[in-house]
Amino acid sequence: MSENPPRSRDEFESVLRAVERSYWDKHPFHQRMDSGELDAADLRAWVANRWYYQRSLPQKDAAIIANCSLPEIRRRWLPRITYHDGTTDSNGGCARWLLLADAVGLSRAEVIDERHILPGVRFAVDSYVSFTRTRPWTESIASSLTELFAPQAMAARTVALRRHYPWLDQKALAYFDARIPRAQKECADALDIVLTHCTSRESQDAAARALEFKTDVLWSILDAIEHSRSVLR
Amino acid sequence: MSENPPRSRDEFESVLRAVERSYWDKHPFHQRMDSGELDAADLRAWVANRWYYQRSLPQKDAAIIANCSLPEIRRRWLPRITYHDGTTDSNGGCARWLLLADAVGLSRAEVIDERHILPGVRFAVDSYVSFTRTRPWTESIASSLTELFAPQAMAARTVALRRHYPWLDQKALAYFDARIPRAQKECADALDIVLTHCTSRESQDAAARALEFKTDVLWSILDAIEHSRSVLR
Repeated sequence: MSENPPRSRDEFESVLRAVERSYWDKHPFHQRMDSGELDAADLRAWVANRWYYQRSLPQKDAAIIANCSLPEIRRRWLPRITYHDGTTDSNGGCARWLLLADAVGLSRAEVIDERHILPGVRFAVDSYVSFTRTRPWTESIASSLTELFAPQAMAARTVALRRHYPWLDQKALAYFDARIPRAQKECADALDIVLTHCTSRESQDAAARALEFKTDVLWSILDAIEHSRSVLR
Repeated sequence: MSENPPRSRDEFESVLRAVERSYWDKHPFHQRMDSGELDAADLRAWVANRWYYQRSLPQKDAAIIANCSLPEIRRRWLPRITYHDGTTDSNGGCARWLLLADAVGLSRAEVIDERHILPGVRFAVDSYVSFTRTRPWTESIASSLTELFAPQAMAARTVALRRHYPWLDQKALAYFDARIPRAQKECADALDIVLTHCTSRESQDAAARALEFKTDVLWSILDAIEHSRSVLR
């Protein structure tokens, strides 16, 4: 594989963008969420479990920085940690996810103590964090490119949540309202880094595999939630 | 050992402060530096080799954050990455170390490409970074407490460098001039974190061992430099 010539920047970008076919907006659980078929208990399971993903993101981003020997890339990546953690307990991405938890009727205690986290969710997220601790930073940044597909999916989701779940407090959607423009900015930067630093065919293929791996992580989170909810039905 | 009762906060602090006995200001190489016995080639070897330590610090600090599940601690630790990396290539702690490299007559190229880094220096520094990647964050933060001993040693060093090596450009000492007040602030914060979060005797003993380990890392850096210079004499 390493004997193949590198792809052009445009070709490589197309390969990465094609991974959208397996992005989690196509998962049956998200499809049912977006068409209004979930009940409050389904939404609670989703919010409580995805908390484990959200709260792992700052550690994932720090692992990428810890593995990167280029100061310029470290400086570009650092604001992501602050985005999730905020500058206080109440103003970061994680804090905004907790507003959604409030709105679906979860107590802070039951979210924070992680009692609802399913093993499959834990394994998938832990595998993602472990990936970023052990793989080259170029692959870890490539894995973050699911953000390329996020803004459109999140925009559709906020419309669907407002329409189909009118009992949700409007401030519940603060996470998505803040995240959509931010994800657009972040994915453009991450894409530029990956396209610039993965210049051999081998590293380009590794980047594409990393992004596929990340879609598997996200998909597995929903598989675990979907399975758990259908067992309870 | 875990059956022993925890030390009081004051006792624990005394145990940590006592590790100063093995801090690298007592190393023969630093002693000779401070008494004006080094020549320009000795100083170049020191500056070029310690670069490897300096440039590893942001990755070490990111590894600590990557391992820490407490947002409050992550937020407190994050400015250290920016301190070393700066917001541009020219305004961080690493950039200030390179001013010292200029002053002792090293080209930027020969510092950055690390051609002068001795194997013993590389092993010691890599071992430190690896420690912070693999050990609990409380131990890694404890290992940073060599900063408790740094301000006094650095203040004495800047006096000695100005007196004994008058050919050094004054801006060469920008690293130390900026680092001394910063280290005082950082070590007070790190000490508070360690005293607050290491509350079992076992974790207190692990913290003290981590700090001893760190003094071994620093001492070994100077051992490698000292040995290399004496072989050349």
